[in-house]
Amino acid sequence: MDDATDIASRFAFLSEIDGLKAVLRQNRTIGERRRENSAEHSWHLAMFALVLGDLAPGLDLNRVVAMLLVHDIVEVDAGDVPIHSAYDSVALARIEAVAAERIFGLLPEPQRDRFLALWQEFEAVETVEARFAKALDRLQPLLLNTLTEGGTWAENVLTEAQVMARYRPVIERGIPGLWPFVEALVRRHYQGHDTTARPAGPQR
Amino acid sequence: MDDATDIASRFAFLSEIDGLKAVLRQNRTIGERRRENSAEHSWHLAMFALVLGDLAPGLDLNRVVAMLLVHDIVEVDAGDVPIHSAYDSVALARIEAVAAERIFGLLPEPQRDRFLALWQEFEAVETVEARFAKALDRLQPLLLNTLTEGGTWAENVLTEAQVMARYRPVIERGIPGLWPFVEALVRRHYQGHDTTARPAGPQR
Repeated sequence: MDDATDIASRFAFLSEIDGLKAVLRQNRTIGERRRENSAEHSWHLAMFALVLGDLAPGLDLNRVVAMLLVHDIVEVDAGDVPIHSAYDSVALARIEAVAAERIFGLLPEPQRDRFLALWQEFEAVETVEARFAKALDRLQPLLLNTLTEGGTWAENVLTEAQVMARYRPVIERGIPGLWPFVEALVRRHYQGHDTTARPAGPQR
Repeated sequence: MDDATDIASRFAFLSEIDGLKAVLRQNRTIGERRRENSAEHSWHLAMFALVLGDLAPGLDLNRVVAMLLVHDIVEVDAGDVPIHSAYDSVALARIEAVAAERIFGLLPEPQRDRFLALWQEFEAVETVEARFAKALDRLQPLLLNTLTEGGTWAENVLTEAQVMARYRPVIERGIPGLWPFVEALVRRHYQGHDTTARPAGPQR
């Protein structure tokens, strides 16, 4: 591959993933109460990683950030599937794998291989980095929901127990020690529809 | 600071920066042709860094990514100032410094100090990492413009020579060797309003 073709391939990829800005998630933004798109969601998650990374010592945080930046790119083709919806996970995995091959395949081999590996690592949830990243991918919408009158929980009429059951295992597994503070947020939301981000921890 | 207060501070910051999703830039997205917001722009720039990072060997790419993730956060308070507009850069710098103190100041000290330093490094444009980051901050809107009928160039009625003069120094200084490919893109845009991302390099 000559230099012009190499650079053109990278630019083609960078143009293609602009499409992630048009993929809407179910969550709403705090200020405008409009649906969040997957590109800004990915930025927010990367910021969550930078802000909370020290809670899991020994983590390769740079890999977590890179993983979060690419984790939703397959949605350019496959769309976003809301966590509280019913879907065929096997069929979805197949569609996303095809999307990954196509979109990351726009890149020269070194970049393609790296991003494919990061995306597969995220999906497999086997490394501590992937577990941490998955936990943030649960924590961010949870925080948004508590600040947007329940957000997707209200929309899907979820009980406090259902919320705890859907978020706790992933967050607890990925970020040791954080769950009590998150649980306090959820509890406080369901008790008083409070709109502050301050958890009622036992120490206060 | 007890643990509950520490975590609450981090959550307050992560909620506050959600506001970046409501800050509109002048550039338009490729698919929907709507104005890009600064949160999705920051994600896109971080992806540019991952995709093009090897073009500047010896770079601390992880610092570049972190810098790009935080570089626009001051806009939550200060708003976005378009590159092609007339503005008082001294007054703007003052407003942004106050914004940085307030917003990063929501965090516990270690995170606050780290993000403030990253933002100041970006603004000072003295390190190779900051120069690379600044170059990407020029390159991304340039690429979008070539794919949206001239975008902000058309809107501000810029000539090809004006575009070259405004983008070339920053891109050439930050990413050695890339400019010829970028120049080809701009030239091709002004000659034919071509909408592909493939530069007409001399090797083809």
